[in-house]
Amino acid sequence: MLIHQDRLFPAEPRARKIAKTLYEHVRRLPIISPHGHTQAAWFARNDPFLDPAKLFVQPDHYIFRMLYSQGVSLDDLEIGQPELKDARRVWRIFASHYYLFRGTPTRMWLDFAFQELFGLGERLSERTADRYFDTISERLRTPEFRPRALYERFNLEVLATTDSPLDSLADHKAIRESNWKARILPTFRPDPVVDPEFARFADNIAKLDEKTGEDTSTWAGYLNALRKTRVRFHELGCTATDHGHPTARTANLSTAEAADLFYRVLAGNADAQQQELFRAQMLTEMARMSLEDGLVMQIHPGSSRNHNRKLYERYGRDVGADIPMPTNYVDALRPLLDQFGNERELTIILFTLDESTYSRELAPLAGHYPCLRLGPPWWFHDSPEGMMRFRERVTETAGFYNTVGFNDDARAFLSIPARHDVARRMDCAFLAKLVAERRLEEEEALEVAQDLAYGLVKQAYKL
Amino acid sequence: MLIHQDRLFPAEPRARKIAKTLYEHVRRLPIISPHGHTQAAWFARNDPFLDPAKLFVQPDHYIFRMLYSQGVSLDDLEIGQPELKDARRVWRIFASHYYLFRGTPTRMWLDFAFQELFGLGERLSERTADRYFDTISERLRTPEFRPRALYERFNLEVLATTDSPLDSLADHKAIRESNWKARILPTFRPDPVVDPEFARFADNIAKLDEKTGEDTSTWAGYLNALRKTRVRFHELGCTATDHGHPTARTANLSTAEAADLFYRVLAGNADAQQQELFRAQMLTEMARMSLEDGLVMQIHPGSSRNHNRKLYERYGRDVGADIPMPTNYVDALRPLLDQFGNERELTIILFTLDESTYSRELAPLAGHYPCLRLGPPWWFHDSPEGMMRFRERVTETAGFYNTVGFNDDARAFLSIPARHDVARRMDCAFLAKLVAERRLEEEEALEVAQDLAYGLVKQAYKL
Amino acid sequence: MLIHQDRLFPAEPRARKIAKTLYEHVRRLPIISPHGHTQAAWFARNDPFLDPAKLFVQPDHYIFRMLYSQGVSLDDLEIGQPELKDARRVWRIFASHYYLFRGTPTRMWLDFAFQELFGLGERLSERTADRYFDTISERLRTPEFRPRALYERFNLEVLATTDSPLDSLADHKAIRESNWKARILPTFRPDPVVDPEFARFADNIAKLDEKTGEDTSTWAGYLNALRKTRVRFHELGCTATDHGHPTARTANLSTAEAADLFYRVLAGNADAQQQELFRAQMLTEMARMSLEDGLVMQIHPGSSRNHNRKLYERYGRDVGADIPMPTNYVDALRPLLDQFGNERELTIILFTLDESTYSRELAPLAGHYPCLRLGPPWWFHDSPEGMMRFRERVTETAGFYNTVGFNDDARAFLSIPARHDVARRMDCAFLAKLVAERRLEEEEALEVAQDLAYGLVKQAYKL
Repeated sequence: MLIHQDRLFPAEPRARKIAKTLYEHVRRLPIISPHGHTQAAWFARNDPFLDPAKLFVQPDHYIFRMLYSQGVSLDDLEIGQPELKDARRVWRIFASHYYLFRGTPTRMWLDFAFQELFGLGERLSERTADRYFDTISERLRTPEFRPRALYERFNLEVLATTDSPLDSLADHKAIRESNWKARILPTFRPDPVVDPEFARFADNIAKLDEKTGEDTSTWAGYLNALRKTRVRFHELGCTATDHGHPTARTANLSTAEAADLFYRVLAGNADAQQQELFRAQMLTEMARMSLEDGLVMQIHPGSSRNHNRKLYERYGRDVGADIPMPTNYVDALRPLLDQFGNERELTIILFTLDESTYSRELAPLAGHYPCLRLGPPWWFHDSPEGMMRFRERVTETAGFYNTVGFNDDARAFLSIPARHDVARRMDCAFLAKLVAERRLEEEEALEVAQDLAYGLVKQAYKL
Repeated sequence: MLIHQDRLFPAEPRARKIAKTLYEHVRRLPIISPHGHTQAAWFARNDPFLDPAKLFVQPDHYIFRMLYSQGVSLDDLEIGQPELKDARRVWRIFASHYYLFRGTPTRMWLDFAFQELFGLGERLSERTADRYFDTISERLRTPEFRPRALYERFNLEVLATTDSPLDSLADHKAIRESNWKARILPTFRPDPVVDPEFARFADNIAKLDEKTGEDTSTWAGYLNALRKTRVRFHELGCTATDHGHPTARTANLSTAEAADLFYRVLAGNADAQQQELFRAQMLTEMARMSLEDGLVMQIHPGSSRNHNRKLYERYGRDVGADIPMPTNYVDALRPLLDQFGNERELTIILFTLDESTYSRELAPLAGHYPCLRLGPPWWFHDSPEGMMRFRERVTETAGFYNTVGFNDDARAFLSIPARHDVARRMDCAFLAKLVAERRLEEEEALEVAQDLAYGLVKQAYKL
Repeated sequence: MLIHQDRLFPAEPRARKIAKTLYEHVRRLPIISPHGHTQAAWFARNDPFLDPAKLFVQPDHYIFRMLYSQGVSLDDLEIGQPELKDARRVWRIFASHYYLFRGTPTRMWLDFAFQELFGLGERLSERTADRYFDTISERLRTPEFRPRALYERFNLEVLATTDSPLDSLADHKAIRESNWKARILPTFRPDPVVDPEFARFADNIAKLDEKTGEDTSTWAGYLNALRKTRVRFHELGCTATDHGHPTARTANLSTAEAADLFYRVLAGNADAQQQELFRAQMLTEMARMSLEDGLVMQIHPGSSRNHNRKLYERYGRDVGADIPMPTNYVDALRPLLDQFGNERELTIILFTLDESTYSRELAPLAGHYPCLRLGPPWWFHDSPEGMMRFRERVTETAGFYNTVGFNDDARAFLSIPARHDVARRMDCAFLAKLVAERRLEEEEALEVAQDLAYGLVKQAYKL
């Protein structure tokens, strides 16, 4: 067996028993996935997934960044190639380096999928590479492994994608118009039209004009175009926005100042500070619109994107070279919070890549401001130890009820059940520790476990 | 039962047994409370406490910040009202939200008081709200629940308050002049007269003139007025000062520079940087006076006070909107340490809200400079996990003997025994881990446990 | 017994059993010590060590910084004296304060040496001070306690020293030319000739001229002199360089800019920023040379050296007053990584004194860039808790194979076996936790344990 039924539970028998009891009560709850990077097109078209390399290796930056760090070339992994020339060769390279993932969540997610979905029982290695490749390839051709069948098998209740304001959402419409009763929702991610450093920023804003009929060359028209686009998303079930800024900085300029800044960034005359100020102002504008239309805001700050210049020049974005930065929230959020912090109808979910902020800034902020909630451990911290640190550092100040359950944030569709399983197990392990140390009654822990696995996410994302 | 006799001890049986043995040796030691925010007036007058809402909810920002974060209005809690109009209604709101405190130290402190002081055995909830209200109200009217009786019941040996230099200390005098043999001591907290941003700063300094007969419009007179006030405090048993600055910054200006700066801040002409520089200089002046008069210095830096602008404008200070900031010690303390760092007769106790400094800056500083000691985990970190992190990150570099036992820092008088109990249990749990992992002998752990619970605080605060 | 055979293993019986099994497989592996501060002269001359005070107390800043923090004077400890006047008196002072080291790694290292090397079984204290002094003194006079005998007894396979480019390496040559078959290697530490703030910087560069025949008054000649010196080190077995900079900042100036900067720093006309820029540029130059000659780079940033001004003025460097600072890697390393980050033939080993960077910056960087590896917990963090934090925060992102085993970094020769023993035990404890929680198979853990204790260090340092 690749995975053990007691995995991630405490070694100490009494705490382990409590964790297992808690887990038994939540393991079969439906999965709500309110934030991630799967593709609506998969479910609109319901085409079979291709080979194992295309499915597991190519889209997963957790995998290829580790291989790259140990000297494997991205060309050998055919990263960036639309079609793989030699999928089996890529798979073999991956398999022969699988030992590198010992102790990582990637290994845990993969082993879960290998065993639970493909029935594989011997560890992936150079020796078993071909057997894996053949077994997985064969299964992928069966109807049970089509995207829609997997969605149902995974017991998904909601699956949110992340989408540009320029996206037609045709795939989402197609899913809605089909007879298939699944809840796959878009998320409004306006980075391409609110971040002056985004590729083709001015072009993107011009396109927004075409799509909305608003004159996006004016500040008022631009804001209206965003408003209309949010409505368009909302009509297809969208309940949330998402903002991936370098920092958590917000601003609260006067209308005249904001308009001037907009014209400057649109004309391409803004320096780095002004670009940052514009992003900061747009977070506050987005909060204002959220108060109007009820969309929940998610802020994902603190990643130094495309840190590896040569790789970026050759392969573009998202090739595993984003590195977290120290992130400040206490000063950065103040302008927005001065304006909207006490609004009970507003929900802003904060994420971080800087764990030093958990107990210092994030838990105190979320434990006070009615509009703030804390997202689960993100990206590099979406891991057993990362989850334990999150609960240990956040709960004593913000409690459980200022957090919002789990986000898988997955690009790899097949990893979704594994990721939620890890999150449920770790929350049960944390609760079991509290119960075993007589800090919480088991009866209460059962209620909290269900809230963490299902109730809180549904409520926070208005699902 | 609301609280279990083995609470907070490790789940693992052998370590738990060691923790219990250690705890049995320290649980009955007298409580020394060298820093907190109780009121001397309570003990001077010995009036009964009013209803449960007034006693537990209104003064406790841990409680109302959590309720506020979940949408409860401060008006409904009657925060800021001198008299409660409907105490029972406030209590019911609190009770029906009591589940929010699961996993927080507040829950642990309250359950301790509910069970140990009021004999309550069923969890507080909407259903039990009235029973709690009635039971507590009834007990509060009995002689056993008057402040002096509770002081004795709590086995307090020393209780320090925190007082403005402008305070007449009449209540402290009244306690001294009564026949009651308790040791309730003032602490010299000069923020109102050393922080240019404090409300009515110049007025406060003028008042200092009246109280001391020194001409506080001159730098020398101002310093002498502070000296005389410290003497006045000292005569009433005060052994320590306390400084609540935004940062840990210190300065060591020449007399002429310091005097110039003083005139500028006094005239209200100082900008933010100069105000910060003045606070920085005053820490060094306070250290100089401490060398003369022997008062122990406490520095509590790193809180961004009154972060919620609207709440501050409406309700004033201390309504749960103080948020920790990243805090630097290594550069900030250097001017003071350059001058006085090697003085063995000086004691400066450092606190922090930025846990990333424990192992990086605070333990290395306290593990070297003879004048420095580390205060216990403060505020948001005064919690089981916070205490464990403190010991785990500090001990290996600074040892146990550069720390100073526990401070409850309580505003809520009834939480004092619970807070010391948590601290004693967590120290015993940490020591038990060391013993169980064969890193310390049990015999030594017994000695350390007693030092942490009683000996070190007495020595560090010169009690 | 001073030390227990199960020390540092988890208290929980199942995990403890796994840890013991793993440890049994690695405990007898040879020790590779690729970075430290022992003296080649000891092994070249093979003179007996002097008394216990000279051996244990005087060179060990971990010891005297703790004693100093508790009011012991450095003069009483005869710190800085070439010959001790009253070694027994120094020893007695140390012994009577030995309780201060409870819970510190120093205590663990010392007890190991006292028991394993000197057969002492009763704890050091005021009472046992003389017995310790006499027993140790007597043994030190025996042939078994000469440096070379100890090297063999410690089962050392490689021992690297840290050496100035101005060092003649005569002791290393003498060892090589003797019949003694040990592998004691120099490490190239160019701080005296690349750090403009180093004492007598310009003189040092002039001396480099004499030693290499290159005209070090020119930028090209200076670089050539460094190149030649690296060759000289390489010929004596050196495989690594080491860089102790205040920050991790790197730069990538044009040749003309770099040359201009060099002339400015050499002339003593550079301000603090330019001095920092020069150090930054030199890290990139060193990386360039490492690509040519294959020497592994070690970067040890983030210490605020000589923080205690008065002690520095009186006793000079390395008297226990170096304090860690917040350290940034993500921006600081970018210029170097832009140039050389994707080179598979380059190895740069990063260390830190700022643990908040483990999960935020270091693991993501090392988990991506092929040239980067993470050094073990350093200095204040070279401790059981520090090691556990390192593995817990690093492994999930960077895995085990982007780390490089253990460095003892010892100045105290006798502590080397104890330090490696602690590291091996803690790695086994961490692995045992993974196995007990079903996150890793025991079979795999055995392989990883051997890699962490022996394989990775040998590979990373090209030994």
